[in-house]
Amino acid sequence: MAAERLVVVGGDAAGMAAASRARRLRKPDELEIVAFERGRFTSYSACGIPYWIGGDVGERDDLIARTPQEHRERGIDLRLHTEVTELDLDGQRVRTRDRDGRGQWTGFDKLVLATGARPLRPPLDGIDAPGVHGVQSLEDGAALFDALEQQESGAPAGREPRAVVVGAGYIGVEMSEALVRRGYRVTVLDRAEQPMTTLDPDMGALVREAMCGMGMDVRTGEAVTGVLTDGRGRARAVATEEGEYPADVVVLGLGVRPETSLAEAAGLPLGDSGGLLTDPTMRVRGRGDVWAGGDCVEVLDLVSGRTRHIALGTHANKHGQIIGANVAGDYGTFPGVVGTAVSKVCDLEIARTGLLEQQADELGLRWVSTTVEATSRAGYFPGAAPMHVKMLAEVRTGRLLGVQIVGREGAGKRVDIAAVALTARMTVEQMTGLDLGYAPPFSPVWDPVLVAARKAVSDVRAHAL
Amino acid sequence: MAAERLVVVGGDAAGMAAASRARRLRKPDELEIVAFERGRFTSYSACGIPYWIGGDVGERDDLIARTPQEHRERGIDLRLHTEVTELDLDGQRVRTRDRDGRGQWTGFDKLVLATGARPLRPPLDGIDAPGVHGVQSLEDGAALFDALEQQESGAPAGREPRAVVVGAGYIGVEMSEALVRRGYRVTVLDRAEQPMTTLDPDMGALVREAMCGMGMDVRTGEAVTGVLTDGRGRARAVATEEGEYPADVVVLGLGVRPETSLAEAAGLPLGDSGGLLTDPTMRVRGRGDVWAGGDCVEVLDLVSGRTRHIALGTHANKHGQIIGANVAGDYGTFPGVVGTAVSKVCDLEIARTGLLEQQADELGLRWVSTTVEATSRAGYFPGAAPMHVKMLAEVRTGRLLGVQIVGREGAGKRVDIAAVALTARMTVEQMTGLDLGYAPPFSPVWDPVLVAARKAVSDVRAHAL
Repeated sequence: MAAERLVVVGGDAAGMAAASRARRLRKPDELEIVAFERGRFTSYSACGIPYWIGGDVGERDDLIARTPQEHRERGIDLRLHTEVTELDLDGQRVRTRDRDGRGQWTGFDKLVLATGARPLRPPLDGIDAPGVHGVQSLEDGAALFDALEQQESGAPAGREPRAVVVGAGYIGVEMSEALVRRGYRVTVLDRAEQPMTTLDPDMGALVREAMCGMGMDVRTGEAVTGVLTDGRGRARAVATEEGEYPADVVVLGLGVRPETSLAEAAGLPLGDSGGLLTDPTMRVRGRGDVWAGGDCVEVLDLVSGRTRHIALGTHANKHGQIIGANVAGDYGTFPGVVGTAVSKVCDLEIARTGLLEQQADELGLRWVSTTVEATSRAGYFPGAAPMHVKMLAEVRTGRLLGVQIVGREGAGKRVDIAAVALTARMTVEQMTGLDLGYAPPFSPVWDPVLVAARKAVSDVRAHAL
Repeated sequence: MAAERLVVVGGDAAGMAAASRARRLRKPDELEIVAFERGRFTSYSACGIPYWIGGDVGERDDLIARTPQEHRERGIDLRLHTEVTELDLDGQRVRTRDRDGRGQWTGFDKLVLATGARPLRPPLDGIDAPGVHGVQSLEDGAALFDALEQQESGAPAGREPRAVVVGAGYIGVEMSEALVRRGYRVTVLDRAEQPMTTLDPDMGALVREAMCGMGMDVRTGEAVTGVLTDGRGRARAVATEEGEYPADVVVLGLGVRPETSLAEAAGLPLGDSGGLLTDPTMRVRGRGDVWAGGDCVEVLDLVSGRTRHIALGTHANKHGQIIGANVAGDYGTFPGVVGTAVSKVCDLEIARTGLLEQQADELGLRWVSTTVEATSRAGYFPGAAPMHVKMLAEVRTGRLLGVQIVGREGAGKRVDIAAVALTARMTVEQMTGLDLGYAPPFSPVWDPVLVAARKAVSDVRAHAL
């Protein structure tokens, strides 16, 4: 019997990364590791689901980084189809329910909560009807995939199948691309005025314009009022305040909230977004023996100084590594995020980091905003594609507050320059001096990010006058 | 008559950027601007020459950002075909010689030296023979282009034309690609053991391997001993210590040295590489009225703390902007470089920033080096391409010292992450926490740079034990 037992709740990125790292650092006789997962998959890339649905990725299992069997072979006692139903923290035990409904208590010395997020599903008529699909988990993705295959095989020849995507955020736009690639006529609905509310409205408008150019019907400023069903109770259209949109399939991409009901019931501290609050070692605040990471926590935003909920696989993996190290007696901290995200819809690349205008306002910051249009390569080089770069800088100090980029090939990952600059708390003036890679196939002589920084410097100065 | 006269020596990037910026800030009656250029082109992209030769860029004039006429229309008194032959700094005047050999003195209140660089041309037999081409200036490029067109139109059908490229640095590898694209059988010669001595030898070896895979004959560790000529005195082969390589055309890509003979004769301060030494405002050290920028100066390397000569259009443009501002009474400084460069040969992308192993040794730094292989996108995503990332970190402190990347699509510009991190003097541990853009089409969940940083952290720790 091992000296200590680690219990992990949740078998996706954060949980299994923590388990794997701890396993590498501590031998089985030192640390027993038990992981509970209520579904049947482990360590998969939920971010990859749209690309599997759309046909970029050939097989569902390509999205699985490590199978249950591989985890078990590495010495992790993984229990699938087993849901944790209660945390008894004082008693250092968790209650589980297996596939057959059997309940059981399992004791722990150390506990990792990696319960992920749950998709938003507004309480509208018909929202749970057959034909309405979420894409949060691999189970969801597999159900949608099967439904699409079935729908397509039974579709009357010559009629273009119709899809309605509810929500025009990351998941919504990626799913729109996937459905267009499968031959669907796609309508995207969002109650916000522009798609991608992770961007400022003016940058979101560029995304909208590009999506319309791809043949998508983008209806923003329209709140969904319900899903209409046919005689058999199956979704046949989505209704908004403005009208009805017929649908052979409805996909919900409304974002997610931290899944922290267990933690809440156990009295663990939650932030404003409902995510668990941790210290930099990813230990739940006020607890010595409970860690949490991934989509169920809030993270420190280094730009605003506040905690935020950001569901993103790359953070979940980092959390898992750090938790695994700390649980095993090594040391690691998660410094926080700057809010970087990158996405694409067909050939349009969309990226952001730092604060939006509205977020800066909420913090009471005064800022100037600068938008430039530049090209991804030297203007004379084939494939040079236009991109818009928007930069927010604090007045007076000129500190970089945020960057948003919308463009074509070569646009998205340029956000990394700004992400590092934000982490280092650089001013836009300092950014103008950055020694970025230049050669005609890679960049104009002034990289688009530098062009924006130069303009921002001048705007900060003009504002100060 | 204007209150002051600015004289600019050299009409390419640094000189004309300075002139243009000064022009925008000061009216003609406040500041007269006279620019001397010994050639016939202004403000062109020398970096673009290989892509014009290789056919990526359609027209020579595509490489010209601003023509002489455009400069004149903006109120710059530009004198082409006019070489500055002497600087009389105490007398505040420069002597020029025009196309017809006429000499003349022109007075200045402020002087900008932007005399660029001269290509290395070792004093070997036959090096000046017809058929041997440099590619430093647009004049050189145009001469090579014409020679290739002529050679190809007169070539016997069925015989593959042969080119020898001397030098396997940036210019050499880019010209090799250009010549391959034109249908030449290309031999690349370099006396170094690996191509791209701006990389460590192990990373250079990856470039060599890839170039050989592209059908190039890469002969390294072979010093050129001369160019052999035919009966008419025309280059017919290049000789090395090992053998002879027949050539219909010979291209020299041996790098450059600062062109500072005028400055040297005038007693201005030069660094170890022969480049002018300036203060951060790009004013020549010890002078109140002389500025210098572009390929004729040495710049501060922020990683080593020493000055270096780096001929690169992006630096020249920055220098020009800063000089123009300062000359006009505004303010700007050039903070220095971290040694970033990016290049490609066919589909191979090559990038570096910071110190090489040997440079770190020369500074007396102790370091660990880490190389990882990772992919540009999520492994399951189409187009995910392998890349090698090498990272140097200081022992004990873990400070990032340098990064080198060799890979395919998406590899090169990732060096910008490291360039910003070097500027901010981050440690590799800090880098592991960077919030870089992640989505399957753009990056694996751990960006390759983060993979390298994680491994580097572990190597720094292992070394400390």
